[in-house]
Amino acid sequence: MEDDFGKALRQTAELMDRELREFLPDNNGLEKQLYNAMRYSVLSGGKRLRAFLVIQAADLFGVPRLHSTRVASALEIIHSYSLIHDDLPCMDDDDLRRGIPTVHKEFDEATAVLAGDALQSLAFEIIGDAKTHSSAEVRVQLVSKLAYAIGVRGMVGGQTMDIYAEGDDIDIVTITRLQQLKTGALITFACEAGAILGHASPPQQQALKAYAHDLGLAFQIADDILDTEGSAEELGKATGKDDAAGKATFVSLMGLDEAKIHARMLVDQAIEHLEPFGPKADLLRHAARFAIERRN
Amino acid sequence: MEDDFGKALRQTAELMDRELREFLPDNNGLEKQLYNAMRYSVLSGGKRLRAFLVIQAADLFGVPRLHSTRVASALEIIHSYSLIHDDLPCMDDDDLRRGIPTVHKEFDEATAVLAGDALQSLAFEIIGDAKTHSSAEVRVQLVSKLAYAIGVRGMVGGQTMDIYAEGDDIDIVTITRLQQLKTGALITFACEAGAILGHASPPQQQALKAYAHDLGLAFQIADDILDTEGSAEELGKATGKDDAAGKATFVSLMGLDEAKIHARMLVDQAIEHLEPFGPKADLLRHAARFAIERRN
Repeated sequence: MEDDFGKALRQTAELMDRELREFLPDNNGLEKQLYNAMRYSVLSGGKRLRAFLVIQAADLFGVPRLHSTRVASALEIIHSYSLIHDDLPCMDDDDLRRGIPTVHKEFDEATAVLAGDALQSLAFEIIGDAKTHSSAEVRVQLVSKLAYAIGVRGMVGGQTMDIYAEGDDIDIVTITRLQQLKTGALITFACEAGAILGHASPPQQQALKAYAHDLGLAFQIADDILDTEGSAEELGKATGKDDAAGKATFVSLMGLDEAKIHARMLVDQAIEHLEPFGPKADLLRHAARFAIERRN
Repeated sequence: MEDDFGKALRQTAELMDRELREFLPDNNGLEKQLYNAMRYSVLSGGKRLRAFLVIQAADLFGVPRLHSTRVASALEIIHSYSLIHDDLPCMDDDDLRRGIPTVHKEFDEATAVLAGDALQSLAFEIIGDAKTHSSAEVRVQLVSKLAYAIGVRGMVGGQTMDIYAEGDDIDIVTITRLQQLKTGALITFACEAGAILGHASPPQQQALKAYAHDLGLAFQIADDILDTEGSAEELGKATGKDDAAGKATFVSLMGLDEAKIHARMLVDQAIEHLEPFGPKADLLRHAARFAIERRN
């Protein structure tokens, strides 16, 4: 039976599908191919966990859903851009994503590069728009945080480390830093965005940031565990790739059992950080547990 | 002998080199390769015409150089990102740019994709920063305009049209629209940014936009002419590529003589739009003439 969390996550996914469709209307010009690729990627499902985190963090402060939904959409758009570029032949060279061909397989490489580029700018366009928040100060703060989370000291920095950090260089400290950038930066932005929209106090901001930090890392460790234990059917993408490529992961460095213990510890810690918010934060607590209990 | 315009353009280029270096400090972490590629591209020279336009347009309104220089840097960073991605094997597949190997040749393709991505976000980070302008309203307006100029209805849309519009589809109307997006969108942003920073009146904004519009198109026609007439030595990149690829250009559609007449007419028109600004706009007038008189 679907619990409250499952229901809320499903509703977020449905909401995102509707919202994201609005940002990418049908087009019949010569840019049609680009729009199609952007829609294909952005609307191909996914858990929408990042959107969920924005909305739930913002809900703690009673932020109008109209505002948090727009930031959530922008973040999902950034996530899509990063997946498209990550899947490129010169990067991870993946043919399958969420059970369907990756963008450069369904379209071509040039379209994949351009669709990713256009999605990045679209996210900033959405956040900059007055519909996202009446205060320019809030919007520009969101722009700054998001730009930082994407850039060389955020997600893209982490992706670079991931590509160039080969086998022996990597220890637990390095992979932790790498993953805190590669997947952690956007997850942290999700929670920070909720706090910014909600004019949270500095201690509240800190609590959410710490929560996101631990959650992001647990999420990545769980990903490594799934890559080892999961099936391609369940995941909708190739598994065991890291292992085959001789890539260091939390599982290869810690062993499977230790990785599971570590992930659980991080989730407990993430949940502790939510203490100041009381029962209002229950869905965020569920989200933390979900990060390591999911099967895909 | 160097005239006032030549001197101002050279000073802008020197200023940009100093400023851009500050945004891309040396780095010794695992992201080092990414920083190196970003610096390599951003500091590889170029005319810095876009930066010049931002600064000169802002000067019309007495905007502090501290502010206009930051926006100019952000725009040059966006221009660099677009060149890196444009040169990729799946796009224009160019080995040479400004007389040196392109980023994917000097580094590799993955680094080129990621460096472009990180440069895009860096530009938004710079514009979002309070150092760019004390008013959040102005910064967020710049973010919105820049995001629009990059995205699917701007530069990236134009690049897509350029890739998919083959031979027979293309007439003068189509190529004009294509180039107004592909190169025109950022040039228009340059002048609009000066107007936004300077709190220009709506008629002043319109005048600058119209100037940029004509200038951008003249600039592109001149590029096509250079691609036909110029030498690889002068241009620092391969010439005659469009012709070899059977690509429609202003020259192939209009003929060389007609293209030259058209470019000159656009420059005259661009200069007329500057009338309301009087002699203060003389450097912008020179910039328009330079667009079609340059040899590279």
